Amino acid sequence: MDFQSILDEINEEIRPHLGSGGKVASYIPALARVSPLQFGMALRTCDGQEAASGDSTVAFSIQSMSKVFSLTLAMQRSKGNELWERIGREPSGSPFNSLVQLESERGIPRNPFINAGAIAVADRLISQGDAKADLLVLLASLSGEAVAIDPEVAQSEADTGFRNTALANFMKGFGTLDNEVAEVVDAYFHQCAIRMNCVQVARAAGYLCRDGMHPYAGTPVITGKQARRVNALMLTCGTYDAAGEFAFGIGLPCKSGVGGGIVAVVPDTLSLCVWSPALDKTGNSHLGTRALELFVAKTGLSVF
Amino acid sequence: MDFQSILDEINEEIRPHLGSGGKVASYIPALARVSPLQFGMALRTCDGQEAASGDSTVAFSIQSMSKVFSLTLAMQRSKGNELWERIGREPSGSPFNSLVQLESERGIPRNPFINAGAIAVADRLISQGDAKADLLVLLASLSGEAVAIDPEVAQSEADTGFRNTALANFMKGFGTLDNEVAEVVDAYFHQCAIRMNCVQVARAAGYLCRDGMHPYAGTPVITGKQARRVNALMLTCGTYDAAGEFAFGIGLPCKSGVGGGIVAVVPDTLSLCVWSPALDKTGNSHLGTRALELFVAKTGLSVF
Amino acid sequence: MDFQSILDEINEEIRPHLGSGGKVASYIPALARVSPLQFGMALRTCDGQEAASGDSTVAFSIQSMSKVFSLTLAMQRSKGNELWERIGREPSGSPFNSLVQLESERGIPRNPFINAGAIAVADRLISQGDAKADLLVLLASLSGEAVAIDPEVAQSEADTGFRNTALANFMKGFGTLDNEVAEVVDAYFHQCAIRMNCVQVARAAGYLCRDGMHPYAGTPVITGKQARRVNALMLTCGTYDAAGEFAFGIGLPCKSGVGGGIVAVVPDTLSLCVWSPALDKTGNSHLGTRALELFVAKTGLSVF
Amino acid sequence: MDFQSILDEINEEIRPHLGSGGKVASYIPALARVSPLQFGMALRTCDGQEAASGDSTVAFSIQSMSKVFSLTLAMQRSKGNELWERIGREPSGSPFNSLVQLESERGIPRNPFINAGAIAVADRLISQGDAKADLLVLLASLSGEAVAIDPEVAQSEADTGFRNTALANFMKGFGTLDNEVAEVVDAYFHQCAIRMNCVQVARAAGYLCRDGMHPYAGTPVITGKQARRVNALMLTCGTYDAAGEFAFGIGLPCKSGVGGGIVAVVPDTLSLCVWSPALDKTGNSHLGTRALELFVAKTGLSVF
Repeated sequence: MDFQSILDEINEEIRPHLGSGGKVASYIPALARVSPLQFGMALRTCDGQEAASGDSTVAFSIQSMSKVFSLTLAMQRSKGNELWERIGREPSGSPFNSLVQLESERGIPRNPFINAGAIAVADRLISQGDAKADLLVLLASLSGEAVAIDPEVAQSEADTGFRNTALANFMKGFGTLDNEVAEVVDAYFHQCAIRMNCVQVARAAGYLCRDGMHPYAGTPVITGKQARRVNALMLTCGTYDAAGEFAFGIGLPCKSGVGGGIVAVVPDTLSLCVWSPALDKTGNSHLGTRALELFVAKTGLSVF
Repeated sequence: MDFQSILDEINEEIRPHLGSGGKVASYIPALARVSPLQFGMALRTCDGQEAASGDSTVAFSIQSMSKVFSLTLAMQRSKGNELWERIGREPSGSPFNSLVQLESERGIPRNPFINAGAIAVADRLISQGDAKADLLVLLASLSGEAVAIDPEVAQSEADTGFRNTALANFMKGFGTLDNEVAEVVDAYFHQCAIRMNCVQVARAAGYLCRDGMHPYAGTPVITGKQARRVNALMLTCGTYDAAGEFAFGIGLPCKSGVGGGIVAVVPDTLSLCVWSPALDKTGNSHLGTRALELFVAKTGLSVF
Repeated sequence: MDFQSILDEINEEIRPHLGSGGKVASYIPALARVSPLQFGMALRTCDGQEAASGDSTVAFSIQSMSKVFSLTLAMQRSKGNELWERIGREPSGSPFNSLVQLESERGIPRNPFINAGAIAVADRLISQGDAKADLLVLLASLSGEAVAIDPEVAQSEADTGFRNTALANFMKGFGTLDNEVAEVVDAYFHQCAIRMNCVQVARAAGYLCRDGMHPYAGTPVITGKQARRVNALMLTCGTYDAAGEFAFGIGLPCKSGVGGGIVAVVPDTLSLCVWSPALDKTGNSHLGTRALELFVAKTGLSVF
Repeated sequence: MDFQSILDEINEEIRPHLGSGGKVASYIPALARVSPLQFGMALRTCDGQEAASGDSTVAFSIQSMSKVFSLTLAMQRSKGNELWERIGREPSGSPFNSLVQLESERGIPRNPFINAGAIAVADRLISQGDAKADLLVLLASLSGEAVAIDPEVAQSEADTGFRNTALANFMKGFGTLDNEVAEVVDAYFHQCAIRMNCVQVARAAGYLCRDGMHPYAGTPVITGKQARRVNALMLTCGTYDAAGEFAFGIGLPCKSGVGGGIVAVVPDTLSLCVWSPALDKTGNSHLGTRALELFVAKTGLSVF
């Protein structure tokens, strides 16, 4: 398939709509001032073909997309079932339910892609090494380029992250976290503040369409079984309370972030990243979602 | 792949465990007296190859597996988005959340595979034709054999179905149902009481792995897009509060019933039915789930 | 105290505000067409003094105020703790919580003054006699006048009462109700449709300020301990999700209805009824609440 | 009434049951090691009569009983409605609901006697003065004796108080708290750690049965209206999820603590404190509750 032409077509169809729907995240200044008039898309196939269009080399805050990579790191390092004794694997429904369930399920977060779950993953990474540095190293290795944390975003997340600190305290009270609350949320806030561009993210996710193999090095990042499981979690839990809608309408494992990025995987075929900062009311990129719909319509790619 | 040998291997591995885990559904006598010492499995590939092993021709109560076929019927007949204005497409979490969400989302059930959603689908089928007869006709056409409702089970469902009647009344109060509550739950209880065997179910689900095409006739049952959407709903919502676990551990669209059956789809490849009456605590067939795990391990088939 | 002058003062202060706040209940036509430009108030002291002002002899739909009297009837007839094994005595918070709690507390309604609780009381009355007739007889005996059910209201309640029918089905599923759902909700809907005026209600509630003794006959309606318990339930649970606010601001046991009536008790002193049809957003009479605030300010009467 | 004889009778009836029901709070060592074989009771009437029996001069951790006094302090100092714009006045149901409601009501705690509400009161006290010292001064003034904070208990509360820190962070996220989370929970933990005995508490609560007047000095602590409102809050919200049960069975405004103390008020008559460390499953003193039931049975005192 001529992916470059397809991405160019999508870019052309999306651009006229920039600015006409959704709203940029506004809970911290560094996100609020990002121009909504941006759209980028990039992909890399399993056999190494690359394509990109639009603002595909503009760096953005990957936010919750980092949860895919921090989970990968924790899976690499966890023995047996120890990770899944602290974190569930079920969709959580609305953020409201997520809190209720954290309480009714005695501090075990529903899955690693809700905030509570990612905070529990961060706790694991602290016990297993240097949570912040290790994630940057993994992302550099996967994307082939150095990536960095935006210190302003990390500070803003910390300054406004009362709800995440509350979740961490709840879990600490239930014994889900081994490390100090302050250290755990610090690691979590820094992970959310990583900046990457579409090309880097598309490359970095390459192991997820290659049964866990590193996109360049040909060594395993995680096992094939683990990679399929990450994909399954992305499909069922990767896009907040719109996961069912994404499965229904797009049919690919996806993980979104409030920076406006979405990473998607077509198993055995390609990994892809789309970015446009304005979010719809479910917290997913408004035009990014539309671009993914166009992509599956044009290519016929779907896991179903 | 030699599917017959694979099913025989699975049958041999499962049989020694019959009776050693899970419990048969006991809320109505007709289900409670089914022997747990039964296991059957059958599949049919897109190119017409069939395989079956164990108690694959013993009829059982398909219960919630019927929700796949009643949804298919309603999709066939609904214009535009009218079906999805009354029914959501998101996972619901626990049965407890399902009720809370029905309330907080003003009578719109989360998806067509929870009871509230299937009751709303039954309401559509009543408005569109003869809800009971039409479903039997569809199943006869898809499986190539006449299938029937077990009148004792239908009566027992009605006699004990206070919770489902409650859900229907809630939805009626919110305007989700057009028809009389009594008529809607009657149709729903009869759908749950249909009896089929593994071979029949595996054949009947054939359109889901063939982009919506009838497994024999070569005419469309639903469109390819609709078939992919049914598969997406099965994967995200088809196995009660274990949908995330099924996606994570098995990686195939599945729909289970409390009669102990599970229907699964490998898109573009095959449709499959497994049955063993004893249920685990999530309400899914205990050994049926184990058999599916063995099947994906032996064949490497997964959507991820 | 010169109660007649006090009621006249309150009537004079309230009348200018008629029509200027709140909304008449509109879920059934018979309530929706009641003019909001009405206000009445009546009281009867323990030593037989009466006072009334405004529209105190205009009959209105007592609605949930009937729950006080149906509970009284069930207390009269229940042995030991049998009533309280099926109904709790705790405030329920919002209607939303009320449903969640009915589920999480396995079909036991939180208290007899929420709808679910009153439906459970109606079930007891059916088991103990003729639920509809017995309540009319009690009210006639207490108020000294025949009172009647408004058949149009009863029919409208039945036609629109899907939520109450849902609650009854839930409780039936949990085993809380002994009788048929249809019979129980029929009794409940008829109780809500009783019409009385302020003078009649104020007289009928006389046993609650006289340690359970009949206001005229001098025989016990219920025991003194039971009367105090009804008062306690009215104070903690009698005014929907505003019970705390009523205790805080008014400080008297009260039970309101969506017909706009509120019955209140000053233990050892008097019973009182106020009525004005427009409701505030908590479902309590807007000006009736204001009138009670004026009454306690002018008289200094409060249980605290 | 001969209150001394009544308290002696109650003491005699209760003592044989010491150790036979309930469990001492065990979440911190300083509470866990308190002997359950203790019972004390003391009261002071509005006209200055005192009575005490059992272990009435043994100091214990007042825990949540402190919420009555910190609320009193905040009411003294708050202008207009500013306190009640941040804290509700409705019963909260179970602790589980309390969290759900904090979320659904956007950070406004249901009432000042649940933990979230008392934390919001502590925030007010910090803004208004020296939260810790001011409360000790008030208690010394009311009881006529110096009272102190147990530093071991305060430290233990801080070390294990993740849930309270979570609640404070949630509220901070919603803007309910003006001060730093760490400072607010520190003040709250210190208030819970105050030690007093039954005689001191009974004296200190004297203003609540005297329309807000200081029990000795004859000057107002709070206004009469405010005192009645504190009593109303105690009755509807003072004993966790057993408030309805206390109103129903005892009929007096009460506030309990997990140290095993309960303070009760008979308006215009007396204030009372009972203490026995073993708690029932609602978190209220097991034998303290029984002693209050005996007290109201023997004296006939009740607000209803």
